Amino acid sequence: VRVRAGGSAAGARPRITLLTDFGTADGYVAAMRGVLATLAPDTPVDDASHAIGHGDIEAAAWCLLQYWDRYPVGGVHLVVVDPGVGGSRRPIAGEVAGRFFVAPDNGVLTHVLAANPSFELVHIDASAVVLEPTSATFHGRDIFAPAAARLATGTRLERLGTAINDPVALNVAPARQERGVLHGEVVHVDRFGNLITNVPGDWLEGASDVIVSGRSVGRPRRHYGDAAAGELVALIDSAGRLEIAVRDASAAARLGTSRGAPVTVRLGGGD
Amino acid sequence: VRVRAGGSAAGARPRITLLTDFGTADGYVAAMRGVLATLAPDTPVDDASHAIGHGDIEAAAWCLLQYWDRYPVGGVHLVVVDPGVGGSRRPIAGEVAGRFFVAPDNGVLTHVLAANPSFELVHIDASAVVLEPTSATFHGRDIFAPAAARLATGTRLERLGTAINDPVALNVAPARQERGVLHGEVVHVDRFGNLITNVPGDWLEGASDVIVSGRSVGRPRRHYGDAAAGELVALIDSAGRLEIAVRDASAAARLGTSRGAPVTVRLGGGD
Amino acid sequence: VRVRAGGSAAGARPRITLLTDFGTADGYVAAMRGVLATLAPDTPVDDASHAIGHGDIEAAAWCLLQYWDRYPVGGVHLVVVDPGVGGSRRPIAGEVAGRFFVAPDNGVLTHVLAANPSFELVHIDASAVVLEPTSATFHGRDIFAPAAARLATGTRLERLGTAINDPVALNVAPARQERGVLHGEVVHVDRFGNLITNVPGDWLEGASDVIVSGRSVGRPRRHYGDAAAGELVALIDSAGRLEIAVRDASAAARLGTSRGAPVTVRLGGGD
Repeated sequence: VRVRAGGSAAGARPRITLLTDFGTADGYVAAMRGVLATLAPDTPVDDASHAIGHGDIEAAAWCLLQYWDRYPVGGVHLVVVDPGVGGSRRPIAGEVAGRFFVAPDNGVLTHVLAANPSFELVHIDASAVVLEPTSATFHGRDIFAPAAARLATGTRLERLGTAINDPVALNVAPARQERGVLHGEVVHVDRFGNLITNVPGDWLEGASDVIVSGRSVGRPRRHYGDAAAGELVALIDSAGRLEIAVRDASAAARLGTSRGAPVTVRLGGGD
Repeated sequence: VRVRAGGSAAGARPRITLLTDFGTADGYVAAMRGVLATLAPDTPVDDASHAIGHGDIEAAAWCLLQYWDRYPVGGVHLVVVDPGVGGSRRPIAGEVAGRFFVAPDNGVLTHVLAANPSFELVHIDASAVVLEPTSATFHGRDIFAPAAARLATGTRLERLGTAINDPVALNVAPARQERGVLHGEVVHVDRFGNLITNVPGDWLEGASDVIVSGRSVGRPRRHYGDAAAGELVALIDSAGRLEIAVRDASAAARLGTSRGAPVTVRLGGGD
Repeated sequence: VRVRAGGSAAGARPRITLLTDFGTADGYVAAMRGVLATLAPDTPVDDASHAIGHGDIEAAAWCLLQYWDRYPVGGVHLVVVDPGVGGSRRPIAGEVAGRFFVAPDNGVLTHVLAANPSFELVHIDASAVVLEPTSATFHGRDIFAPAAARLATGTRLERLGTAINDPVALNVAPARQERGVLHGEVVHVDRFGNLITNVPGDWLEGASDVIVSGRSVGRPRRHYGDAAAGELVALIDSAGRLEIAVRDASAAARLGTSRGAPVTVRLGGGD
């Protein structure tokens, strides 16, 4: 089917997704779910993840990018990775390409907003939205979950607070091309130890060699299966970016590579 | 909004929450979910957590306390943290403040029952409730899940078994005040390394110093954000209790403190 | 109740379960859930597990066996543990005892198929099923989730692709009996360190001693509670197989035993 999954919303019920760094064992996620069950009792709630590293905004932003537009329009994506909760950072809500977002204003929406310049954002400051008493340390339960429940049940975005247009953004360096060489970096290491880069897959035509952590990986191939077990392989990942992997093992462990490591790609010539 | 989340149940569908120490990789949780899907097919089921430490009844009791009354009335909270399953401990079910509970009688409901002296409990001994054959080692699937499904689908509590009024309770020492000093202890260490105590937040008026693991933390402040990154800070947590934290780091790791450590708070005087 | 949970499907809505080795932090599971929410918006989706070890097909096959037939008929069990994704292994779908399955053809359905010789399987090769563009590395999102959504919404199995009857199977050695001694092996070690074997529980009548890792455990008993805390105990587990456990501790750690270790059971004679 040629229709992209997230594009067809006909018949879809609004749905809320949850992304946090809370783990589950302390009951914080369940407390948020209880608030959602009370304020939006008919809205299904999906756990995206509660295993983001403590306060790792970059990882949360990356994770969100993998799924937000695979969901139908009308749903609400709730993100609570919020180091320094209760300080001066704003709670925000937004609408991008028909989906709603609720999050702290700390950069976690960077990738979503960067790809969709036409967005609407508000600072959640309407007193009718938050639960009282409002904890100073658990805005996920007392501010973010109630705001998500309002959006899922039809409250209009502008009723949640004051419009803003200056969201905090992560400092994301794009890949660049210079005299036949692509320069990028590792932007995410996934559970399998795959190294995901910021190099767009459609820049790779004619690529003859990929180099990461000083190691030549050769030209990009199509499948993990094109490599022998244990062999390093470069390929285009499921989000359309250059990825370096080891079949059935961890490229990150093999190469000692972590987020931020430089990646270069030689174009043309080649062996 | 001044309405506490869990207080407003209008329109809410009954819902089941699951809390276990099973992890998920062995399929035990999914087996319970399959039983629930069969016996209560229209009831949404929320995972509270499956990451409770093996047999850690205290941790499960604490986790449950964070969410049970955030859920609407009418729902069922199912807890299976059950060391020694199949021995002499009773399977029990109860109703507290309009919510239902199903659990082994091992103290996991201690905090819920302590705060709500008007509760009803039964020993689940009605043969019509359990699945047969009944495994000797997996009461979660064969006794507790079926009981929860019955309650979610309208079976009355008293139909599940014989009334009891002597549930097992954890030995929980309350905080106490003595000559201008509060004495309490750390009752939970959360994923972030925050130290949560049994000292009620509303006892802290006039507090001039909090001492934990021999370390003075100073007077309680309002937000994590009131501390510098890496600084120890005392504050009132999201459940209204004294908490000791380090902004953007782990107080437990910093201080080498674990559950049970004594905490003292000096009142008045102060610097 | 004598009705086995999974047997009664009256009133049950079709439901999809998810079993992967993805973890959740990379957003891959949420991307699959987004596809399901788009293509099967009214179908509840249960997380069975995302904590299967990387590429551990045996563990996934074991996990699936614990729950698939506890679910009502009509549901779809989706398994994506798929080392070498995108190579030559086939994506398959099947119907067994009224439940549907979608998985890579790598043996993960071995236990389900072995117990139900009357099954139907297809190679998912109908172009109308998959999402395009189809990633070479994420068939969970682009092939398996769409196929599961089709089955959950009423598409007939044969519409998904070409019938096959030669699924890949794991090489599973059955237990055997020889001159009054049962010979089997440890087939799974669960989160609690319990050693689960391939020895059927109904072979154990008259068993006088169980030996694992050179250690005599004695005759099988009925409950964990029949052993003292810290004591090794053999018993029949919740799936009807011989299990070796330590009450309130890990038998695997105590004995240094892992998957594949031989187990022998002496019949008759006695201590």
